[in-house]
Amino acid sequence: MSEAWIFGVFLLASGAAAATGVIFKPGAWYESLKKPSWTPAKWVFPVVWTSLYLLMAWAAARVAVLPENGLAMALFAAQIALNTLWTPVFFGGHRIGLGLAVLVCLLVIVIWAAWVFLSLDLIAGFAMAPYVLWLCLATALNYWIWRNNSSAVS
Amino acid sequence: MSEAWIFGVFLLASGAAAATGVIFKPGAWYESLKKPSWTPAKWVFPVVWTSLYLLMAWAAARVAVLPENGLAMALFAAQIALNTLWTPVFFGGHRIGLGLAVLVCLLVIVIWAAWVFLSLDLIAGFAMAPYVLWLCLATALNYWIWRNNSSAVS
Repeated sequence: MSEAWIFGVFLLASGAAAATGVIFKPGAWYESLKKPSWTPAKWVFPVVWTSLYLLMAWAAARVAVLPENGLAMALFAAQIALNTLWTPVFFGGHRIGLGLAVLVCLLVIVIWAAWVFLSLDLIAGFAMAPYVLWLCLATALNYWIWRNNSSAVS
Repeated sequence: MSEAWIFGVFLLASGAAAATGVIFKPGAWYESLKKPSWTPAKWVFPVVWTSLYLLMAWAAARVAVLPENGLAMALFAAQIALNTLWTPVFFGGHRIGLGLAVLVCLLVIVIWAAWVFLSLDLIAGFAMAPYVLWLCLATALNYWIWRNNSSAVS
């Protein structure tokens, strides 16, 4: 019972982060930006993010019931806050450079979180791997857009 | 050593939420809204929020090193994500009604978190009390603004 509640509350945390993608849409501004040839198709983003939000909530719920989980739980809180911050900064505020700074910080924290999760529970650690990989792509994409759209950068 | 890291990472989570207050400023739109006579003075908000962010990180770090902290840590993650969401929704997107929905959800989660913190560690539970009280005021203020600024509501 308690474990189901824990997973449910982590899903709510993921849901708050996911809500930013619904509230702050890419729109005409994002369409007008130059993007690299390796930018994933538009439909890929919501599919991948939904999967990642479910996966990270599930991994966190596994770790939450283990002893000595303090650092892991702190890292999860930091990454979900940074994740919630990125979308409004980038799509809401059109702040490409600041978005990149948030994303680099998020990537570092998620790599650290995956590492600490791995030390507590192998499965939870591996469940964070797709998130790390996707953030590498997202950071590269944010960097490329920042370098190649100087006029749109604020 | 590990406890200092845990506090530091929770501070980063608080910092990500606090950053929204710097990035999404009230500005002319907020100035133009009708506000109740009991609205606190402008300087109060950053002072109170800075104190609350420090206090919640400290309370979370106390609970993070205790056994059976899973639900408490899930609730902290959910509240810091919802907290990070509110400012861009309200000040960034000018979505007063949606901001109120986020704030009500945040208030419920923070009351629940304070309750669970209290069951694990008296001091950590009491450290969440000012946050609960301030959120009651913030929710009342958001509600008042929503009811009395129909033309500015989107």
